[in-house]
Amino acid sequence: MSTIETIKVLAEILRSRNWQMAAAESCTGGLVCAALTELAGSSDWFERGFIAYSNEAKSAYLGIPAKLIEMHGAVSEPTAIAMAEGAQVQAGVNIAISITGIAGPSGGSIEKPIGTVCFGWAIRGDSGNRVLSKTMHFTGDRQSVREQARDFVLSELLRLLKN
Amino acid sequence: MSTIETIKVLAEILRSRNWQMAAAESCTGGLVCAALTELAGSSDWFERGFIAYSNEAKSAYLGIPAKLIEMHGAVSEPTAIAMAEGAQVQAGVNIAISITGIAGPSGGSIEKPIGTVCFGWAIRGDSGNRVLSKTMHFTGDRQSVREQARDFVLSELLRLLKN
Repeated sequence: MSTIETIKVLAEILRSRNWQMAAAESCTGGLVCAALTELAGSSDWFERGFIAYSNEAKSAYLGIPAKLIEMHGAVSEPTAIAMAEGAQVQAGVNIAISITGIAGPSGGSIEKPIGTVCFGWAIRGDSGNRVLSKTMHFTGDRQSVREQARDFVLSELLRLLKN
Repeated sequence: MSTIETIKVLAEILRSRNWQMAAAESCTGGLVCAALTELAGSSDWFERGFIAYSNEAKSAYLGIPAKLIEMHGAVSEPTAIAMAEGAQVQAGVNIAISITGIAGPSGGSIEKPIGTVCFGWAIRGDSGNRVLSKTMHFTGDRQSVREQARDFVLSELLRLLKN
């Protein structure tokens, strides 16, 4: 499914449940929000986006303890989870997704090479709040890593909502 | 100049002044932040982005009085200025830009037809804070209006920094 097709199905599900969503992006830098809002009428279900590029932004903006980022690193599943939960609470929405990774061409390490991207999903439904995280390793240049990360976070969200 | 060429020149200027910037986007929904962060090394000068799609987000998120939005409308120069100033203060950066408009295909009125986009620029330098706003009327479909708005806010910022 193409990015926009995924978003169209996502929009239908959100409308049917009367839910809104938010996104917290680091390495994708706005690509996810830009894709979501490409669809006409997205203001019905898209509430806001946090482009938290610096660590200070992640802390101040999304309420993530600086110590957590220090301990696990900005690119880690605990940080991704905290970003999703922070966005969910601050925007007051049912769903929030997060992306934090190393798009390159610099910033990689042996432990976390370029292309490492951590994701978070926080989904509040009738039976409580489901919070999940995942780490992926993408290959390709900066823009390719960013686009793969955008498509992954959205297709996974769709999969989670369908299950 | 293409979008990425404009951003490259912008990045050089910001680096030379040791400045950082932030962006507050409504109708462009992340396109400006995504373009800025497409450039490798943008984390040196791009601090954060606020995708304030709903009016609630504009108020809670950027500290804009709900009354101001009520009085002038979300798509207005006073709201654009408040978005830029709010982003500048909250991110603690020298430069903030803002975009709020009607990308369509719905939401237009006789007074504010589809394609109406208001912009704000807040630039803090040695001689104080320069705050400017402008309204443009773009033609074309939703994505075209959004892309024209993205390119306009960036090329205008470059012009202002060069003057």
